[in-house]
Amino acid sequence: MQISSQSPIGIFDSGIGGLTVAHAIRNRLPNESLIYYGDTAHLPYGDKSEAAIQAYSVKITQLLLDKGCKAIVIACNSASSAAYELLKEYTGSRAKIINVIDPMVHQIVSQHSNKRIGLIGTKRTVNSNIYKTKIEVLGQGLALSTLATPLLVPMIEEGFFNNKISGEIIENYLKDPELDGIEALILGCTHYPLIKKEIEAFYNGKVEVLDSSEVVAIALEEYLSSQGLHNKNGKPSDVFLVSDYTASFEASSKLFFRKRVELERYPLWD
Amino acid sequence: MQISSQSPIGIFDSGIGGLTVAHAIRNRLPNESLIYYGDTAHLPYGDKSEAAIQAYSVKITQLLLDKGCKAIVIACNSASSAAYELLKEYTGSRAKIINVIDPMVHQIVSQHSNKRIGLIGTKRTVNSNIYKTKIEVLGQGLALSTLATPLLVPMIEEGFFNNKISGEIIENYLKDPELDGIEALILGCTHYPLIKKEIEAFYNGKVEVLDSSEVVAIALEEYLSSQGLHNKNGKPSDVFLVSDYTASFEASSKLFFRKRVELERYPLWD
Repeated sequence: MQISSQSPIGIFDSGIGGLTVAHAIRNRLPNESLIYYGDTAHLPYGDKSEAAIQAYSVKITQLLLDKGCKAIVIACNSASSAAYELLKEYTGSRAKIINVIDPMVHQIVSQHSNKRIGLIGTKRTVNSNIYKTKIEVLGQGLALSTLATPLLVPMIEEGFFNNKISGEIIENYLKDPELDGIEALILGCTHYPLIKKEIEAFYNGKVEVLDSSEVVAIALEEYLSSQGLHNKNGKPSDVFLVSDYTASFEASSKLFFRKRVELERYPLWD
Repeated sequence: MQISSQSPIGIFDSGIGGLTVAHAIRNRLPNESLIYYGDTAHLPYGDKSEAAIQAYSVKITQLLLDKGCKAIVIACNSASSAAYELLKEYTGSRAKIINVIDPMVHQIVSQHSNKRIGLIGTKRTVNSNIYKTKIEVLGQGLALSTLATPLLVPMIEEGFFNNKISGEIIENYLKDPELDGIEALILGCTHYPLIKKEIEAFYNGKVEVLDSSEVVAIALEEYLSSQGLHNKNGKPSDVFLVSDYTASFEASSKLFFRKRVELERYPLWD
């Protein structure tokens, strides 16, 4: 399928957390049409194997290619870590693949290279060492302290934020010695923007909290503009597909996309 | 395949939580061989749709039938609620299907019919109203108070138990007005035996905490004995299959089965 500036942008995640990235893209690129795919049948990806995440990601990417997407954003750190290289190879020149990690790594190296940086994320993201490796390769002498914080995703999904329990859980993680002395903290999971204010409050504003959704939207805009693929006059139409539909997912979507969305069941697996 | 007393017992769950039930069965029926299937690719079932859980359960049941199981235990409340009737119909006379709900319902009605009973479980189990309906049908005048406690599964899986955070989360749930005045509490999820002591402590021993794993093992033993299918002399050999293998699942298995188990990757979905 021939792509043009009129072609939609594909975005996918293991569930609905990636809607924080979709929201940033919707705001920054108001004339683009989005196709979002949430793999709610397999969520969360954070504790799945690399091979499983790769297989799911290829199937979703093929769907987004079939729908004519000019660019595909992997709005999930676990999938960005496990499947980005594979998806680039798989997609070739058919569409641009953008992950949520590289734009943040470039920002860190260019703007925070003199700081002690921390990162929190799911087990998969942290154990993959992908941020650590990429930042240490590009930023000479820059070291990253990382901590897996796996309870934060279910905590947020169950509506525990801005309350005593989320405060306890966040404090328990952030007071880990691994993060001692950091000056900036990367939110290495697309759910975490919902607790950004609580994290900032824990640090009394003394640690800069970095959330990648805006950075990814800028990277996408730059790519589209450089290729003459930026749609500046289109009337946007957004589609939100999920591999498993429940009313509870639909209700939660509003938290992440900041407005009501209609999820459409679109199973890819039998 | 012809079943006999030598045939294995199948047990399945969305992940590794059902190993609490497998453990009770292993203890009670020391000469039986077990085949456990943990659908770790789709875990947790608690927030999946009914149709999805039914589809996964049928596929797993067919595998256990192919492996010659004489009885299949649905060691998961979500799957027991969503798929039990379907699996009975699907399996017919090929094997006995036992769920984790009915044995507990029978115990409640026969032994606790004069008490105010509460139940905690995942959203799916609670919203299905299956315990409520079954108990209210069998036990005249018996009413059940139910509360969804969705954060408990990830909390337990991430190792938060017997500590300050689990204490806070458990207290937050159990002080819900819905559970006011109960005299016994059903643990409607196979993960919850790991926090049984904390729940008992919250109630200072004034509320009886009912865990179904032992009750299910007794129901299974009664069935096998009544049919001449109880293997009393066999040398047991257990197999633990998972749809997605990670080292983290293997490490957690020990918590639930109370001894180390070797998980074998056995994918059923492409």
